Amino acid sequence: MKINPHKKLDYSCFYQMKTRWRDNDVYGHINNVVYYEYFDTAVNLWLIENDILNFKSGEIIGFIVKSGCDYISPISHPSNISIGICASAIGTSSVTYKSAVFKDGREFASAQGFFTHVYVNRKTQKSCPISLEFRQKLNDIFKS
Amino acid sequence: MKINPHKKLDYSCFYQMKTRWRDNDVYGHINNVVYYEYFDTAVNLWLIENDILNFKSGEIIGFIVKSGCDYISPISHPSNISIGICASAIGTSSVTYKSAVFKDGREFASAQGFFTHVYVNRKTQKSCPISLEFRQKLNDIFKS
Amino acid sequence: MKINPHKKLDYSCFYQMKTRWRDNDVYGHINNVVYYEYFDTAVNLWLIENDILNFKSGEIIGFIVKSGCDYISPISHPSNISIGICASAIGTSSVTYKSAVFKDGREFASAQGFFTHVYVNRKTQKSCPISLEFRQKLNDIFKS
Amino acid sequence: MKINPHKKLDYSCFYQMKTRWRDNDVYGHINNVVYYEYFDTAVNLWLIENDILNFKSGEIIGFIVKSGCDYISPISHPSNISIGICASAIGTSSVTYKSAVFKDGREFASAQGFFTHVYVNRKTQKSCPISLEFRQKLNDIFKS
Repeated sequence: MKINPHKKLDYSCFYQMKTRWRDNDVYGHINNVVYYEYFDTAVNLWLIENDILNFKSGEIIGFIVKSGCDYISPISHPSNISIGICASAIGTSSVTYKSAVFKDGREFASAQGFFTHVYVNRKTQKSCPISLEFRQKLNDIFKS
Repeated sequence: MKINPHKKLDYSCFYQMKTRWRDNDVYGHINNVVYYEYFDTAVNLWLIENDILNFKSGEIIGFIVKSGCDYISPISHPSNISIGICASAIGTSSVTYKSAVFKDGREFASAQGFFTHVYVNRKTQKSCPISLEFRQKLNDIFKS
Repeated sequence: MKINPHKKLDYSCFYQMKTRWRDNDVYGHINNVVYYEYFDTAVNLWLIENDILNFKSGEIIGFIVKSGCDYISPISHPSNISIGICASAIGTSSVTYKSAVFKDGREFASAQGFFTHVYVNRKTQKSCPISLEFRQKLNDIFKS
Repeated sequence: MKINPHKKLDYSCFYQMKTRWRDNDVYGHINNVVYYEYFDTAVNLWLIENDILNFKSGEIIGFIVKSGCDYISPISHPSNISIGICASAIGTSSVTYKSAVFKDGREFASAQGFFTHVYVNRKTQKSCPISLEFRQKLNDIFKS
């Protein structure tokens, strides 16, 4: 069950975040659930910054259909963390993003995970194909 | 990427829970992160009820090293949910628990996942073998 | 700074809830923030059950403009809790709800608080007067 | 019920934070509960940075006995926020901290609140007087 931690080179872009007091669990470590909050935040920031997602009024929204995470070494609040993301699989209407948490200036990930978004029409909630423009931006952050 | 939803028969014991207002995300569905809160709560309740875990003063605590979830059909607050759990892999010092969310009286899971606990000594933080008593209780909730 | 704990008689209706693993903070107590999750959930449940609030498509939504809480005695997960609510001030377009957390079968509150909702039109986000029907239902749960 | 928003001048020190995806509620605004996460994080950071609080092994820990917040204008994720804090009342063993959320470069607070910490001995959980050193640091951030 030994996991090889990813490196920063394995990811395409990074978002700086800070832990919060409530992130720590009863053992004084960041709770396992909270890592998914970091991943979700980073990928959605990328989508918003690239004018792909407008969660208030946009026609297309992303639903998560699968997620997972390997926890390699514990982090405690307070920490400055860098969240790396990349696109690792680009389908017709779905994208899998890989994401990892790097503590401070560390080269190796403390935790690494992924989630798969299916893009759907907000009204019909049916999946819709990824636009050419979106696909090009995904290609820019693609890492296999 | 089609997922077959688990049935209640696939799980060994169940915990009734209620969603909270804050569980809903901006799209009016339970946020993907929150499902891990349900899983964590259910498995730890089982450990506490069976006198295996005393998170305040016990010698042995569980660290999550891996987790994952498949989201099958969205749930919205307010909902009554039943969280099914079972042990699906029992190692020397680690256990993988499967867990699923069943909405109200539904027979099929709305989401199904797992996490792997490694049991460590609270002071040394080194992994320690599962006791015979704990192993027997795990066998009672084992489903492959 | 001594606070007199409220009694169950001070509240009009009650919602049963359960704590979650993540509610505990690093000191093993329910984190102060989480009590507001309980209050929010209880009052919104009452609004939903009474057909006043439809947060997905209703014309009128409630914005919180003020909240507060006195923490009397700590609670730890796992606990079964009962959340009492009542309306303590009914204005033209705003309502103040009092809310308290009662552990298990306890008669005295572990924590007691309030929040003030202003009801606004979802589209214009301007405050709108409380309907006669809503006002009658509020009168039913009024306690000064 | 009109609230005068505080200004940055009303606070003594500031912590930069970022909102998270999960902070948004179903109406697309930061949920009322989350502001208390920001306050808690900011005050505890100040305590940690000033070597007053060591939440893992220190003798003295802070319990919140009272909190409150006025919500002035809604914020949505994603936002960069600055959390101002000051000490507004210093007792024998308790301190009230005022705290406010300033969006981006804004001069007026989007929300402003407070909480009161009672400092207790970790083992006995009895209140203990604030040390001279702690009191001097509190005086440095005091604003009436």
